[in-house]
Amino acid sequence: MKDLIKLVDEHLDKYLPVIYPEDIFKAMKYTLSLPGKRLRPIFCLETTRMLGGDMMKAMPTACAIEMLHVQSLIHDDLPCMDNDDFRRGKPSNHKVFGEANAVLAGDALLTYAPQTIMEKSTELSSEQLLKIIYEYTKFAGAYGLIAGQVVDIESEGGKYVKSPEETLDFIHLNKTAVLFRLAVRCGAIIANAPDDVINEVDNFAKKFGLVFQIYDDIMDEISTFEEMGKTIGKDKNSGKLTYVSLYGLEEAKQKFNSMLEDCYDIISKYDSSIIKEILESLKHRISGV
Amino acid sequence: MKDLIKLVDEHLDKYLPVIYPEDIFKAMKYTLSLPGKRLRPIFCLETTRMLGGDMMKAMPTACAIEMLHVQSLIHDDLPCMDNDDFRRGKPSNHKVFGEANAVLAGDALLTYAPQTIMEKSTELSSEQLLKIIYEYTKFAGAYGLIAGQVVDIESEGGKYVKSPEETLDFIHLNKTAVLFRLAVRCGAIIANAPDDVINEVDNFAKKFGLVFQIYDDIMDEISTFEEMGKTIGKDKNSGKLTYVSLYGLEEAKQKFNSMLEDCYDIISKYDSSIIKEILESLKHRISGV
Repeated sequence: MKDLIKLVDEHLDKYLPVIYPEDIFKAMKYTLSLPGKRLRPIFCLETTRMLGGDMMKAMPTACAIEMLHVQSLIHDDLPCMDNDDFRRGKPSNHKVFGEANAVLAGDALLTYAPQTIMEKSTELSSEQLLKIIYEYTKFAGAYGLIAGQVVDIESEGGKYVKSPEETLDFIHLNKTAVLFRLAVRCGAIIANAPDDVINEVDNFAKKFGLVFQIYDDIMDEISTFEEMGKTIGKDKNSGKLTYVSLYGLEEAKQKFNSMLEDCYDIISKYDSSIIKEILESLKHRISGV
Repeated sequence: MKDLIKLVDEHLDKYLPVIYPEDIFKAMKYTLSLPGKRLRPIFCLETTRMLGGDMMKAMPTACAIEMLHVQSLIHDDLPCMDNDDFRRGKPSNHKVFGEANAVLAGDALLTYAPQTIMEKSTELSSEQLLKIIYEYTKFAGAYGLIAGQVVDIESEGGKYVKSPEETLDFIHLNKTAVLFRLAVRCGAIIANAPDDVINEVDNFAKKFGLVFQIYDDIMDEISTFEEMGKTIGKDKNSGKLTYVSLYGLEEAKQKFNSMLEDCYDIISKYDSSIIKEILESLKHRISGV
């Protein structure tokens, strides 16, 4: 796991050289290079590997998905959004580079990600590239990540059109699960997996995304700034819809455990010690709560 | 020209249906549907047509380039950027939908544009699609539009590393010319034009982009809100680097005329009454100044 994180970090650094005008590249690189668990790129790489593909062929796409993730973090932290001063334990992007550059750094990452896929994936076919880029554009935008974020913001004001349960699931299927789905779907495409396998790992990623979000909501309730590297208790204090606020801590934990079992069921068919290790570490931390 | 604008407007509307969550699609559609001259899509369509291709095959790409243009307008108008309350004569996006939704609407358009190209360009080959998407990602981001915007913001604070002349050209080659370049390059790719023709129309677009910016700077100096549909005299008042502030009105007009002649020289080889009409209308308005 540590080796994989290091490998991803090295490629993220290599794929984004700082050229003129340096300010924008520095702002893009700043949040991108903050230490992270790199779960999304690792899911992409591991999916390619466990489905019999060459993991290194997936590296540009894996890194592009991390760029997209970081783009969403930079914009989410903006004063007009979640107004968060810290990210991964450090001052957030707009605190260092100013709001204008943080907006632009996010914009730039949003197209630099597919640019990287196209420039660096020299061993993929045109058909694979087009499929990957299409998944990227769909999941990154108003049919994915942005849809989740918009409904999240609406829900904060108590303004939502579906039921609270449906709204909460919609937010996190789009805001959280979508990036894991993108990661495993692209990983499977790179391994030339058939459609039924793509759908199965996609189903895993949907469930994992929700498990991961419930984990995050529980941690936001009980964790510390030092542990999470970001402001804690904020969602609770802002009256935001979360799995803990909607279902209570106990039922949230039950949901977590039950969906985590579903994840184990699906992934047990495949040979991935890394993904099992990730599931184990979430399980371990929640069991101590 | 009017028929072309109407055709583009109809397709922009058709390509972006409003679905759940409606707020984001409405915000995207709002600025996109404000009446505009649609110069960039028209350049794309006309380039395909004058190079012997089927204009309608270029429609999704032409509309995608307008989406990118509108994305840049929405983000440029934000309070943390140019802080402009009006656009195309109407309240700007964040004045209607709030800052958070305006940031997200811009983000969403940035990936909805290539998504549209891939979904609607059913008659283009995979190779053509990949070329177009690659040009899009490069010109939209830190190697294009965003680079121009970042240096523009820096220049406002008088903080730039190159000479004022070089800085001003860099800003507008990237901020303004880049979208015209993207339009004609993609138009030429769709017409299956050879590389030397792509380079020639690209060269035209570079010059046209600068001509268009000098025109805009002169108009910002002497025009009215009613005529331009946006706040006037702002660049001058903010001490921004413009062709008029750097060279004076007379020399700016000379530059305009000389580069416009270069544009005529290149485009005279091709049969495009529409592009000539656009050049004529700029010439006419500046000659009256």
